[in-house]
Amino acid sequence: MKQTVEIYRGGVKAMAIWDDVIPQEELKRFAAGGMGTSLVGFGEKAVLLIVDMSYGFVDSSFPLGDSSVGWTTVHHIQKLQAVAREKKVPILYSTSEWKNNSVERGLWKRTPEVTQALKNPKAYRIVTELAPREDEPVVTKMAPSAFHGTDLLRMLIQYNADTLILTGMVTSGCVYATGVDAFSFGFRVIIPAEGVADRSQIGHKVALFNFHMKYGDVLPMAEVLRYMSSK
Amino acid sequence: MKQTVEIYRGGVKAMAIWDDVIPQEELKRFAAGGMGTSLVGFGEKAVLLIVDMSYGFVDSSFPLGDSSVGWTTVHHIQKLQAVAREKKVPILYSTSEWKNNSVERGLWKRTPEVTQALKNPKAYRIVTELAPREDEPVVTKMAPSAFHGTDLLRMLIQYNADTLILTGMVTSGCVYATGVDAFSFGFRVIIPAEGVADRSQIGHKVALFNFHMKYGDVLPMAEVLRYMSSK
Amino acid sequence: MKQTVEIYRGGVKAMAIWDDVIPQEELKRFAAGGMGTSLVGFGEKAVLLIVDMSYGFVDSSFPLGDSSVGWTTVHHIQKLQAVAREKKVPILYSTSEWKNNSVERGLWKRTPEVTQALKNPKAYRIVTELAPREDEPVVTKMAPSAFHGTDLLRMLIQYNADTLILTGMVTSGCVYATGVDAFSFGFRVIIPAEGVADRSQIGHKVALFNFHMKYGDVLPMAEVLRYMSSK
Amino acid sequence: MKQTVEIYRGGVKAMAIWDDVIPQEELKRFAAGGMGTSLVGFGEKAVLLIVDMSYGFVDSSFPLGDSSVGWTTVHHIQKLQAVAREKKVPILYSTSEWKNNSVERGLWKRTPEVTQALKNPKAYRIVTELAPREDEPVVTKMAPSAFHGTDLLRMLIQYNADTLILTGMVTSGCVYATGVDAFSFGFRVIIPAEGVADRSQIGHKVALFNFHMKYGDVLPMAEVLRYMSSK
Repeated sequence: MKQTVEIYRGGVKAMAIWDDVIPQEELKRFAAGGMGTSLVGFGEKAVLLIVDMSYGFVDSSFPLGDSSVGWTTVHHIQKLQAVAREKKVPILYSTSEWKNNSVERGLWKRTPEVTQALKNPKAYRIVTELAPREDEPVVTKMAPSAFHGTDLLRMLIQYNADTLILTGMVTSGCVYATGVDAFSFGFRVIIPAEGVADRSQIGHKVALFNFHMKYGDVLPMAEVLRYMSSK
Repeated sequence: MKQTVEIYRGGVKAMAIWDDVIPQEELKRFAAGGMGTSLVGFGEKAVLLIVDMSYGFVDSSFPLGDSSVGWTTVHHIQKLQAVAREKKVPILYSTSEWKNNSVERGLWKRTPEVTQALKNPKAYRIVTELAPREDEPVVTKMAPSAFHGTDLLRMLIQYNADTLILTGMVTSGCVYATGVDAFSFGFRVIIPAEGVADRSQIGHKVALFNFHMKYGDVLPMAEVLRYMSSK
Repeated sequence: MKQTVEIYRGGVKAMAIWDDVIPQEELKRFAAGGMGTSLVGFGEKAVLLIVDMSYGFVDSSFPLGDSSVGWTTVHHIQKLQAVAREKKVPILYSTSEWKNNSVERGLWKRTPEVTQALKNPKAYRIVTELAPREDEPVVTKMAPSAFHGTDLLRMLIQYNADTLILTGMVTSGCVYATGVDAFSFGFRVIIPAEGVADRSQIGHKVALFNFHMKYGDVLPMAEVLRYMSSK
Repeated sequence: MKQTVEIYRGGVKAMAIWDDVIPQEELKRFAAGGMGTSLVGFGEKAVLLIVDMSYGFVDSSFPLGDSSVGWTTVHHIQKLQAVAREKKVPILYSTSEWKNNSVERGLWKRTPEVTQALKNPKAYRIVTELAPREDEPVVTKMAPSAFHGTDLLRMLIQYNADTLILTGMVTSGCVYATGVDAFSFGFRVIIPAEGVADRSQIGHKVALFNFHMKYGDVLPMAEVLRYMSSK
């Protein structure tokens, strides 16, 4: 599935991935309100976060997975991961895990069949292509945001990070929730458009549009790679 | 602006407000994944939260406001507020305030013109039609979620709430972020569709779709009024 | 090590476990300020939390453990655990775990020798006498408070708890930090005096004094057992 | 009230302010466990936090205030504040405010008389000697920790701080709770001993002892001034 990833930047005329779903009239209203017309920009110290790139989301063999967008995204993130490792940019990962007690699982809306499928530990295993190294922390979360109920925030502060490069699945779910939290905690959030994916194309595009209008920057992967390479 | 508010509930065939923006194919994929096919349901003790119904969002005289949807929503929420008061359901409100120091304002993407407009205290004043009574707490927030940097969570716990009736503006921004946090903290979240609004129709619909698929229930206002009246 | 556990309650004259360390003059100043002169009291729905009753704290074979107070406390908590199970009061546990990366371990002040000793998984194993049942959740934490970086809060909310019965080790460290968080989140916190212990007797007593003056109730275990049995 | 402020540092023999209240035997046990035998140390970017130096705590005309230690502490903090301003070290303040609704006030253990006294706005006014400048943010809190329900954390992150210089009142209450949170969020916490005070001398000393053993560094004010002056 091809995605156009040139990003809309307010004044600057450019094709953005959401241009085919957000009506012109609405784009104009946002521009008039001054939203999305500037960039937050990269700070001094970035950390790369890879959200939920486990088989359960990447692969269609799981009920919540979507191979049609998942595997392409894996390959895009791989490039970023390689540069981050080379440039000593810290990498953090999130995933989830099966919990026996319903009170531990939270109030997710799921059918018994999906709950059953989520008992398979492979659903939570980060795909081999992106496997964390021993020195790269993985947080285990039960809520959409990778900050909720985890030590992610403390580690970002210990890394003295001011910028979060945010990737993973799914855009409109855990990625978006993580991005809103990161923004709320005062981090500059940069989402490389090809580094996130969603089983819903419209959910994907509208989430990125929303995020770019209000909270952080959605940029082409090439631009994020360029920034990281220059470190 | 008329909105169709019959809600999609998985198995039950019904027109939902997002049916004109979410492609059939995607709706089917969600149904196949068991998402949105059941309701979280009301619990034992509900609290009504009214997010950011201030002139700055309700009224088009402010750059981020939208009268075309704001005032209708005010009137819908008024009915809920009246029943809540009658039935002794606690009501909480959120708004924001101007801060002189940029570090206090956070990293919102805004033009200097919008920032200037936000110095007007009226932008943060809750509209007269929904004015909080003295005994109804108002939290002041600087982040999208009404939980972030406020005492909302403690008050919900002191009220012994298990259910959050979530209303306000804007759907895809502060309402959505508040809803994700409420879900993450273990509350049943119910959004009456006519009780929320957004300057972007597609943002509004996709946010509600997303929320109903994963985290909580988007219901017609009539159903929420019925529940609250029966208390 | 015998502890006197009658609790000081402001006006009511009674021997409290801290009476031998807090000077009379200071007790009077607190009473004059109206602190500790009333009880928060039990609410409607209690949860029992057992903090860090692992070999690393209970047993002197570990550098941070103290058998002289740990094992007595195990036996006291056992009684409470038994009644809680009988009365269907939910039980939650916290412990910690070894992390390979220093950034995951946080900024605890420890010598290399202590850090080395903490690699032993037995340090984090909850003592057999208090072993959690399969349906009793255990949260894994890296910070003093059992709320920090865990799902404890969400589970308390899902249990609809308004009261936290707080036990474990060590009083002045993880128990106290957990208690302050629970109070801050709006829970009634009850500490049965014999259900908590510390390697420092003065730390233990002053922490309980402080807590009882400001945030929650320190009660004799017998009173907490009586309350729980009456459910 | 004179306080000895040379700080105990594990191996290094020195008089510490807590040496007259912590029994030798306990000091030895802590040293054997490797606690308090090293310093966390200053990082790269410090922020000065002044907790609750309002008339309600500083001055004995309020039921929770204590002039006998409050005013001396004001003068010590003034020196630090002056150097911080000169060296462009950001300064943040916390205080509280009166809330009409009991649900907004939380579960603090207070007599009706104390609650009555806390209606006076002067109780929350930061003393003139330490009055914040317009560009120095003040957070308003209802819980012990200055992080709880405030934007303090976001601002520290936006300042890119890794070190929190922690001062204010009262040591065993709001200062200690704030310090534990700062530690838990991954900040290096430095408490200048003369920059904190408590109505209870034993509470003060044991809190500092505890903090220095486990979470951060309690240093003589002179050392903190020297560090800040060298910036």
